[in-house]
Amino acid sequence: MRSELSRRLEAEISKMEIIDPHTHLQHPTPSAGVIGNIFGYHYIKMELSTAGMDVETLMDDSLPPDDFLKNALPYIPRIQNTTTWWGFMTICEALGFKDKVINEENWQDLCEISSETMSQDGWYKKALDSINIKKSFLTNLPDEDMTGCDMEYFVPSLRTDEWVLEIDQDTTREKLEKLTGSSVKNLGDVKKGIKQIAQKFVGIGAASMAISLPPDFQAFVVAESDAAGIYDNILQGKRVTDYELTRLKSYMLYSLFEVCDEFNLPFQMMLGVDRKIHKRLEWDGFSTRMDMMKTFRDALNRFPNVKMIFSILNTVLTHELAIYAKTFANCYAAGHWWYTFYPCIIKPMILERLQAVPYPKLVGWYSDSYYVEWTIAKIKLYIQTFSNTLADIVEDGYMDEDMALKVAKAMLWDNNIEIFDLKV
Amino acid sequence: MRSELSRRLEAEISKMEIIDPHTHLQHPTPSAGVIGNIFGYHYIKMELSTAGMDVETLMDDSLPPDDFLKNALPYIPRIQNTTTWWGFMTICEALGFKDKVINEENWQDLCEISSETMSQDGWYKKALDSINIKKSFLTNLPDEDMTGCDMEYFVPSLRTDEWVLEIDQDTTREKLEKLTGSSVKNLGDVKKGIKQIAQKFVGIGAASMAISLPPDFQAFVVAESDAAGIYDNILQGKRVTDYELTRLKSYMLYSLFEVCDEFNLPFQMMLGVDRKIHKRLEWDGFSTRMDMMKTFRDALNRFPNVKMIFSILNTVLTHELAIYAKTFANCYAAGHWWYTFYPCIIKPMILERLQAVPYPKLVGWYSDSYYVEWTIAKIKLYIQTFSNTLADIVEDGYMDEDMALKVAKAMLWDNNIEIFDLKV
Amino acid sequence: MRSELSRRLEAEISKMEIIDPHTHLQHPTPSAGVIGNIFGYHYIKMELSTAGMDVETLMDDSLPPDDFLKNALPYIPRIQNTTTWWGFMTICEALGFKDKVINEENWQDLCEISSETMSQDGWYKKALDSINIKKSFLTNLPDEDMTGCDMEYFVPSLRTDEWVLEIDQDTTREKLEKLTGSSVKNLGDVKKGIKQIAQKFVGIGAASMAISLPPDFQAFVVAESDAAGIYDNILQGKRVTDYELTRLKSYMLYSLFEVCDEFNLPFQMMLGVDRKIHKRLEWDGFSTRMDMMKTFRDALNRFPNVKMIFSILNTVLTHELAIYAKTFANCYAAGHWWYTFYPCIIKPMILERLQAVPYPKLVGWYSDSYYVEWTIAKIKLYIQTFSNTLADIVEDGYMDEDMALKVAKAMLWDNNIEIFDLKV
Repeated sequence: MRSELSRRLEAEISKMEIIDPHTHLQHPTPSAGVIGNIFGYHYIKMELSTAGMDVETLMDDSLPPDDFLKNALPYIPRIQNTTTWWGFMTICEALGFKDKVINEENWQDLCEISSETMSQDGWYKKALDSINIKKSFLTNLPDEDMTGCDMEYFVPSLRTDEWVLEIDQDTTREKLEKLTGSSVKNLGDVKKGIKQIAQKFVGIGAASMAISLPPDFQAFVVAESDAAGIYDNILQGKRVTDYELTRLKSYMLYSLFEVCDEFNLPFQMMLGVDRKIHKRLEWDGFSTRMDMMKTFRDALNRFPNVKMIFSILNTVLTHELAIYAKTFANCYAAGHWWYTFYPCIIKPMILERLQAVPYPKLVGWYSDSYYVEWTIAKIKLYIQTFSNTLADIVEDGYMDEDMALKVAKAMLWDNNIEIFDLKV
Repeated sequence: MRSELSRRLEAEISKMEIIDPHTHLQHPTPSAGVIGNIFGYHYIKMELSTAGMDVETLMDDSLPPDDFLKNALPYIPRIQNTTTWWGFMTICEALGFKDKVINEENWQDLCEISSETMSQDGWYKKALDSINIKKSFLTNLPDEDMTGCDMEYFVPSLRTDEWVLEIDQDTTREKLEKLTGSSVKNLGDVKKGIKQIAQKFVGIGAASMAISLPPDFQAFVVAESDAAGIYDNILQGKRVTDYELTRLKSYMLYSLFEVCDEFNLPFQMMLGVDRKIHKRLEWDGFSTRMDMMKTFRDALNRFPNVKMIFSILNTVLTHELAIYAKTFANCYAAGHWWYTFYPCIIKPMILERLQAVPYPKLVGWYSDSYYVEWTIAKIKLYIQTFSNTLADIVEDGYMDEDMALKVAKAMLWDNNIEIFDLKV
Repeated sequence: MRSELSRRLEAEISKMEIIDPHTHLQHPTPSAGVIGNIFGYHYIKMELSTAGMDVETLMDDSLPPDDFLKNALPYIPRIQNTTTWWGFMTICEALGFKDKVINEENWQDLCEISSETMSQDGWYKKALDSINIKKSFLTNLPDEDMTGCDMEYFVPSLRTDEWVLEIDQDTTREKLEKLTGSSVKNLGDVKKGIKQIAQKFVGIGAASMAISLPPDFQAFVVAESDAAGIYDNILQGKRVTDYELTRLKSYMLYSLFEVCDEFNLPFQMMLGVDRKIHKRLEWDGFSTRMDMMKTFRDALNRFPNVKMIFSILNTVLTHELAIYAKTFANCYAAGHWWYTFYPCIIKPMILERLQAVPYPKLVGWYSDSYYVEWTIAKIKLYIQTFSNTLADIVEDGYMDEDMALKVAKAMLWDNNIEIFDLKV
């Protein structure tokens, strides 16, 4: 049974104010609105599919979201063991649904009850307030319309994948030209445009730059003339080799480090996703290359004033990441991303970080959620796991209970304020 | 101390009916007969050797098996910490031996008691009945004589390593010719022969195909004409390059996928063994290549109707395998193979699977045993570890006790019925 | 809360005699003398730096050591979560300091109290006696002056990195010439010189050879003529390729195996460090190559009489190392090195070793410490973690309490006596 100490820690931590430094919330529609959208989260769709739900029904976007829930009813009993399912039921309860199971008899009740709850005035604020989340970072594409964004609850974060991974695409250049109103004739123009957009985001209160990189990304210094030449060839429609593209991408990442340096922007880097490994359903996976962290050694040394906050999508290199956060003053370890967001993986990650790394270097948690409702499930799962872990540490005598609570507050609040220089 | 809940779960699970979907039992001699054969299991021989027993005595096959036990007595105190030793003592107890130690005074008693037990009429059935194992899969070579196989207790499974890993060997071709009564003149003949043998095995009730692949196996699409040309060169005694052989092997594996597809045969794939790394004693080891799972992405996408049931012989990629089982409807994660069959490795593997993967995608356990007596030890170790793990999950609130028992039953019984389409 | 059983085991193990088979103690100055030297351990400096202490103050060697402590006071609250900090406070307590915190008010008390304690006559013996450490191995460079070494407390161990990793350096050759009084004209002379020095060390009671190898070290047989030719080129000032140097280094390592074979010297090999990855502060890190253990297969087979005792600096290959210790009679697994010396990493490592490997193949612990005071902290942390782990094993029924204590004694004492053939 969970210990008294763990429950006491959980009760205290549940009262703490929290910052959520990485989400995919859409500022105009932060709530799912209907339960079907919550149920349609790709974490759950994947489980339904692997449990036997046929692909046609699964991916039929012509139906209203709640009908998807109805179609999935036969497969629900087959996914009830996962912690994602636990998360879904936690959300249902938070929305006012009292039953412990979902079936033919009550699914319509669930739809109605949850729609009613979510249609309340200012629901998303109530939802976030209920879990003490004071600020949620957004993930904003360069051309995203930020008009009307609720800056009390949300913090912009500039997502920059396209400037690195799709630097050879016409669409990237065209978007840049449109956004800056200047034509792009060479790599210098690209860098000027990026800087201009970054400046605009800083101006509206963006607190970080963010990027997601594949496991085989190679980061190394590339001469400006080399990168410029490669980009010229791309502009002229010439074919570039794989290695040329590798160099250009690395050059672009280093350019972003320079922008972060200039604007004092922390850089959130998510490492390890392989896109669309499931061909038919276009689901993402991951793989591990043993130099995924090592490749950033040069950048960590070269840009001591750029705060690099890493998340990593495997269980193999979590220890190595922790030791980087211990070694480099500008390296931070953040949260538990996607396929690592399971209690049995979160707990050893917290332990290895808290035993080895000074706690101000740790971002405890982020939700990665698309709707505030999933944030509810994810923070509950995290706090429960965090409490169990801290209880173990206290029971082994490496911290006392006060220190454990101080560390918890730092990992959920103080460190975010300090790292991202937030005004609250 | 183990919790009440864990003990209660263990008591319930110990009553469940079980299917053992991978063993090396020989259907004419499923029992060891004498304790020396049980003690001579390579899991134990390795431990005796590393603990100091000299190689000559260890490998002296001229002695009766029970004399091997006698010769090993001085080394037994040095291996008593391992769970393999615990397993051996568990078997001794099941055979009627009451002592807690084995030494000069009582080893002959052990030999006599165990021989007497194992010489009972229908002993192997009693042994399997005592642990509720209703069906044990065999590992059958293509030319294995299945006459007189007890189809009530055993299920054939066609082992296909030679058609992939030894496709360039004369012996492989000759065996195929002998079995099919047709001469092999090209790769098409090989494929025809394999299909014919697979059909024969399906006819006698084989429920799966099986293969063991090394860590560096590369699976990718190879053009038929390319593979056929390479095979022609082999037939003509020409030298083929490493890369040609890599292509041919991959082509052969894909051919097996096609056969599985045609006959609706699930494919059990065991990944990771390096053969004979100990040169003198010819013991197998393992190593890890980070693309061991990734290399199957193409096949998983290309053969959606072939059930691929993976086991993996390292601790590095267990998380990746779990996420594949979550991502691909035709991918299953099975058991805890060989060097991973230790409680401290089994428990985190079960946790990461049960928190991330819908339970119908999980084959909980198989014995991999050569004699039914070792099956007794291995299922007991598993059930104890499984119960501890489920208890943790229940105590953390992610499942209730009923769900835990439902999941246990599925992982030991229902899923095997469903995946292998067994008639029981 | 820690179980009664764990506390009982801890009490018993704390009374056991212990051998520390790897330290960096300097035999003329085994004690730190002042608390500033204890606080200035690189484990702590790294934490202060990453927690925000500026580099200039951190690395200012012109100040007395205790002033470094004073300068670090503002950063201490930021590192109090780590087990290294717990270790430091454990030392303070052992030195007679009673407070639970260190701050502006009491840091001078700490300096005075600890200096007083450490200035006692024969303090280092008292310190080691207080934790029952009867013998501490040293790490001796070939040219180290061993005059006056306290052979009751210390055991020499010949560190051989330079003869492998720096074989191409003039300084290596020159040192060898100076030590042996003979000029080095070819590789044969190098080998003769090394043998001569090894013989000298054996003569003064050295119990092992030791080396630290990087993650990408490749060990394989190299022909003598090939190596000799490469070395000739080096002597003639010619440029050698990377692959030539790789071959020469491997040849040198194999030469050391031959010396170990001849003198019956066990070889302690520490695998995995990457030197000076933090450019400005010259701190070491690590990375993992998946063939780090595999590369020693040939040597393990080729030198069956050379005891190879491996430590490994990552969490990825600990299972593979355990299985090597189970497979090869001449392979041993030792301790928990540097970035793996955290309770959450030590515990799973002990479990996987004790469940899979006969216990005589395990060296439980070494301190790796530079001063005897850190040895106090490190053995306490280990014994506590070891006790928790053994308690789990006993509670699961895989050992009884007597066996657990027998195993503990072996891993801390008996095995060292046996492996290193110590006379005590």
